[in-house]
Amino acid sequence: MKQAKISIVMGSDSDLPVMQQAADIVKEFGLDFEIDIVSAHRTPEKLFAFASQAHQRGIAVIIAGAGGAAHLPGMVAAISPLPVIGVPIKSSNSIDGWDSVLSILQMPGGVPVATVALNGAKNAGILAAQIIAVSDPAVRDRIIAYKDSLRSQVIEKAARVKEP
Amino acid sequence: MKQAKISIVMGSDSDLPVMQQAADIVKEFGLDFEIDIVSAHRTPEKLFAFASQAHQRGIAVIIAGAGGAAHLPGMVAAISPLPVIGVPIKSSNSIDGWDSVLSILQMPGGVPVATVALNGAKNAGILAAQIIAVSDPAVRDRIIAYKDSLRSQVIEKAARVKEP
Amino acid sequence: MKQAKISIVMGSDSDLPVMQQAADIVKEFGLDFEIDIVSAHRTPEKLFAFASQAHQRGIAVIIAGAGGAAHLPGMVAAISPLPVIGVPIKSSNSIDGWDSVLSILQMPGGVPVATVALNGAKNAGILAAQIIAVSDPAVRDRIIAYKDSLRSQVIEKAARVKEP
Amino acid sequence: MKQAKISIVMGSDSDLPVMQQAADIVKEFGLDFEIDIVSAHRTPEKLFAFASQAHQRGIAVIIAGAGGAAHLPGMVAAISPLPVIGVPIKSSNSIDGWDSVLSILQMPGGVPVATVALNGAKNAGILAAQIIAVSDPAVRDRIIAYKDSLRSQVIEKAARVKEP
Amino acid sequence: MKQAKISIVMGSDSDLPVMQQAADIVKEFGLDFEIDIVSAHRTPEKLFAFASQAHQRGIAVIIAGAGGAAHLPGMVAAISPLPVIGVPIKSSNSIDGWDSVLSILQMPGGVPVATVALNGAKNAGILAAQIIAVSDPAVRDRIIAYKDSLRSQVIEKAARVKEP
Amino acid sequence: MKQAKISIVMGSDSDLPVMQQAADIVKEFGLDFEIDIVSAHRTPEKLFAFASQAHQRGIAVIIAGAGGAAHLPGMVAAISPLPVIGVPIKSSNSIDGWDSVLSILQMPGGVPVATVALNGAKNAGILAAQIIAVSDPAVRDRIIAYKDSLRSQVIEKAARVKEP
Amino acid sequence: MKQAKISIVMGSDSDLPVMQQAADIVKEFGLDFEIDIVSAHRTPEKLFAFASQAHQRGIAVIIAGAGGAAHLPGMVAAISPLPVIGVPIKSSNSIDGWDSVLSILQMPGGVPVATVALNGAKNAGILAAQIIAVSDPAVRDRIIAYKDSLRSQVIEKAARVKEP
Amino acid sequence: MKQAKISIVMGSDSDLPVMQQAADIVKEFGLDFEIDIVSAHRTPEKLFAFASQAHQRGIAVIIAGAGGAAHLPGMVAAISPLPVIGVPIKSSNSIDGWDSVLSILQMPGGVPVATVALNGAKNAGILAAQIIAVSDPAVRDRIIAYKDSLRSQVIEKAARVKEP
Repeated sequence: MKQAKISIVMGSDSDLPVMQQAADIVKEFGLDFEIDIVSAHRTPEKLFAFASQAHQRGIAVIIAGAGGAAHLPGMVAAISPLPVIGVPIKSSNSIDGWDSVLSILQMPGGVPVATVALNGAKNAGILAAQIIAVSDPAVRDRIIAYKDSLRSQVIEKAARVKEP
Repeated sequence: MKQAKISIVMGSDSDLPVMQQAADIVKEFGLDFEIDIVSAHRTPEKLFAFASQAHQRGIAVIIAGAGGAAHLPGMVAAISPLPVIGVPIKSSNSIDGWDSVLSILQMPGGVPVATVALNGAKNAGILAAQIIAVSDPAVRDRIIAYKDSLRSQVIEKAARVKEP
Repeated sequence: MKQAKISIVMGSDSDLPVMQQAADIVKEFGLDFEIDIVSAHRTPEKLFAFASQAHQRGIAVIIAGAGGAAHLPGMVAAISPLPVIGVPIKSSNSIDGWDSVLSILQMPGGVPVATVALNGAKNAGILAAQIIAVSDPAVRDRIIAYKDSLRSQVIEKAARVKEP
Repeated sequence: MKQAKISIVMGSDSDLPVMQQAADIVKEFGLDFEIDIVSAHRTPEKLFAFASQAHQRGIAVIIAGAGGAAHLPGMVAAISPLPVIGVPIKSSNSIDGWDSVLSILQMPGGVPVATVALNGAKNAGILAAQIIAVSDPAVRDRIIAYKDSLRSQVIEKAARVKEP
Repeated sequence: MKQAKISIVMGSDSDLPVMQQAADIVKEFGLDFEIDIVSAHRTPEKLFAFASQAHQRGIAVIIAGAGGAAHLPGMVAAISPLPVIGVPIKSSNSIDGWDSVLSILQMPGGVPVATVALNGAKNAGILAAQIIAVSDPAVRDRIIAYKDSLRSQVIEKAARVKEP
Repeated sequence: MKQAKISIVMGSDSDLPVMQQAADIVKEFGLDFEIDIVSAHRTPEKLFAFASQAHQRGIAVIIAGAGGAAHLPGMVAAISPLPVIGVPIKSSNSIDGWDSVLSILQMPGGVPVATVALNGAKNAGILAAQIIAVSDPAVRDRIIAYKDSLRSQVIEKAARVKEP
Repeated sequence: MKQAKISIVMGSDSDLPVMQQAADIVKEFGLDFEIDIVSAHRTPEKLFAFASQAHQRGIAVIIAGAGGAAHLPGMVAAISPLPVIGVPIKSSNSIDGWDSVLSILQMPGGVPVATVALNGAKNAGILAAQIIAVSDPAVRDRIIAYKDSLRSQVIEKAARVKEP
Repeated sequence: MKQAKISIVMGSDSDLPVMQQAADIVKEFGLDFEIDIVSAHRTPEKLFAFASQAHQRGIAVIIAGAGGAAHLPGMVAAISPLPVIGVPIKSSNSIDGWDSVLSILQMPGGVPVATVALNGAKNAGILAAQIIAVSDPAVRDRIIAYKDSLRSQVIEKAARVKEP
């Protein structure tokens, strides 16, 4: 088995239905990944261990999803030198998702988080693949093919929608 | 000199003009305090050391201020068993302060942060005093006196504003 | 039976499903509490009586929850010298909870309310326990144990989520 | 001197530049008024005394202005049977005025506050005059004349703006 | 039968479930009223006729409810010298009610609308009664009695909620 | 002189600095226009006369700008059968422009307003030209030329910005 | 069959239930139209081909609907000289519709999009008819008749709502 | 000279003061870059040419900044297979930056944009370096060193802030 490349973490198991979409698309691109729960607020030691060691374990990109006052992506980015993709999740009691979006997006100078749309775990997976494709032409080809397939699907649907 | 009781930390030295107001009012209440910069995003190890040791150093209450994607108060609350008061700060490039307010306020179940108003460092200091007053009648008396002085000031100003 | 220490009040009986969570966690921490409805807008005299006498009845911390234009926490804080924890509640006809959040959070200088997340009554209860723990080592120990249990639960859930 | 009819109160002397506009327009309509500072948060006893006695002192309408977590208009309306007009004021450290608008507007069923625009003290004064005009035909005539003067001013300005 | 005093208008029949609450409470206060649909956008001539004649027909107060870009209350206030109470209604396709709240509240200087909470038609009715009570002591007495009944209801509910 | 084709109206002379940009670009496209102040709230009769007669005076398109609770564009659209372009203006005391944007944009089914960006009077003028160009090939050509000039300006600026 | 005049495009087939309302009303006005899916993000080449050729194919007005980060209306307006009407659609995972509203409305100077209300496809169709009516008196007559029918419907509903 | 690796584009020369920060930090990391103005709305053909050819010219990562209805980052991401980093810029007439943030962030499934904070061009540059570092250990080392320097700066500032 190949070494894991993409690490998908989330703050709570309630985030799994959304974050599974990142795993699914990453698998579709033929990439290795691992998936885990790392709560910034309930397992801070695990967060520190995970974020400080990830690049030494051969992880290339980290995808971190969280809701509410979502500190996981930013704290992972604070500790790890790897590119960190943040997925804001619209949890229950969220104020319409604004809390997780702003908690992840508005990082201070020096510590970026690559934020995707609210509940946009699928796009986080695609972005991770695009990052790996920077040095892997085979993955680049799969991304180009994926974009082709998106186009084809729209063309097909368009054919059905046109007024007869 | 007495042992420090209240710890005031902030994410950046640019937060000092706001956070100094917490120090000033705490001093006015005759309470010991310490003040330091602890950046969740730029000094995560210091954050961890600070938050895990504070209650062992005799700190009773922590006041933590930060702007933007403000993770300092929530991360301190994740690690420390102490009550943590969060001060959202309206930094430059903030989206009108909403980012720091929501990043601090919307903590998940299990890990509270006692959030005060945007730039409300003065109120954070008063709240810290009220917390210490729970077991210190002398501080309670000073709070009651402080509330009296607030009233007196308004009464005086009201006298000047009344239509002759 | 010991003297009551924490007072939980709310503006309406429709707030009870949320505010009961404060009572439950406070009970879990082995703390005395009382629970009551005090409407700032419909029983202002009761509000005044409650808030002005609470500290004389041995109450240490007040938790106040309300929705919409939520004036209860701030008015209690205006009258009582005790630390007041505010719980914004997302009532029907609320504008997405923004009204109760801002009505409770944005208190003027001199009169703090320790605001927790929207519907965050559980965290209000934990914060009350943390405040009492400042002078009660046994409660402090229970908080540390509680934080341990949060960690254990996440670790267990993480074990189930990991890709086999 | 005639008996006062309209009572203009505000939470802080910093609200005076805005609230003075209510006084000015009320004076322009030839109505009696009084003006005072009544802080819900710093002088709660004065608030209670003021609001419970106003209708017995011959006050017909109350105009109450406040900023931030603005509880003054709602608390006056809770205690007094009089119509209460609320003026949200954009104070410093306000979150763009949203806090005062929502704190005043979103009152629960049973306790209305007649809210005007942010910093709309002038309109509060006109509304007070309209309320008094319900039973005072002379004031009604002045309101009709005032509306005529608004129209005339626009017509004049329009004449200057038209492309020659 | 007495002459109608309060006119309740709304922009669409879809607003009726909300606006009926204004009629119900007004009836409870023993006041005469009329109810009608007047659409600023679909029946502008009716709007003009209604608003310019209301004060000549013996109407004392107008309650106007509308959703979305809610122009009815403001346009009635532009034309009529009467006090106009605006009820923002959260219609389908509304952006969370913000559109109707801001369209009604943020009137320019010179033309006030007494705005109540989102969907707050009941409070609009109470406010109308308070306005009429300015010159009608019997209605004033009913308002005082109503406030007493609000208090009694809360006291009763509080008795049931208290921890045994 | 040719007959006026585009009518530019605004709610207040304080809107002129913004609305003049509509006039300037319309002039640049060689189109006839008129400009006037028509206040929905202060000159409702003029609004009614203007909107009901515009299409009979040979006006083809109406551009209406207003701030705050901006009712002018929607009311003109309610009365006139012409296409109405709405310009939300960020006036003083506006809540960050949200009030005028939502008051103009969120029109109910049946009565459209073609809304442009906040303070986007220039774009309103271009849109008016595009509407006239539907049946006027000469204006169409000028629009195509205008788009070319936009492109050329960017290309020139790009040449200066490129790293040497 | 007559040549198509109005082109209705949307970013996704999930937008069809909303955008169909534009087609329905346009048909009601007796106007020719075409309907298609053109995704700015998944079929950018089709977008370019569509937008650059539409005016050469006899299209007079383009209606473009999209949700989330809605780039279709603005990109069509960037390329085509035709008037472009934008319909913000509240898609799943939208942040309450704000994303599509702002992505369509806030176009830069030089490139207008005539934006209608959230999900306001019906109004987009009416606006397209109004634009065509600028040079087609028969369509103008139908618009006037349509406005009459709106009025009649309200008058009928009003008759049913009036208090007996 | 080495081949360009990072392409920095922006929608307008008014974005240059912000976007220059991306160039500066990228230079600091010793990486090749190019900088250009590509307006989605004013030079759509250039956008198309740029985005479709970038990966064939040896570009590894694209940084795209834009304000208002910011379509540049999303359209580049629609066309190019490369990872695209979006920088929301708070332009004049922006609605507090919300328009550019949401226009860039809320991309649909299939087409990610790695969004950074409002005006966060510096972080965009760091993120680009982190992406290149995935396959370039020397750049990784510079990132680790950069993070160390951030920490050192805070430690130094903290020493100055501590209460003597």
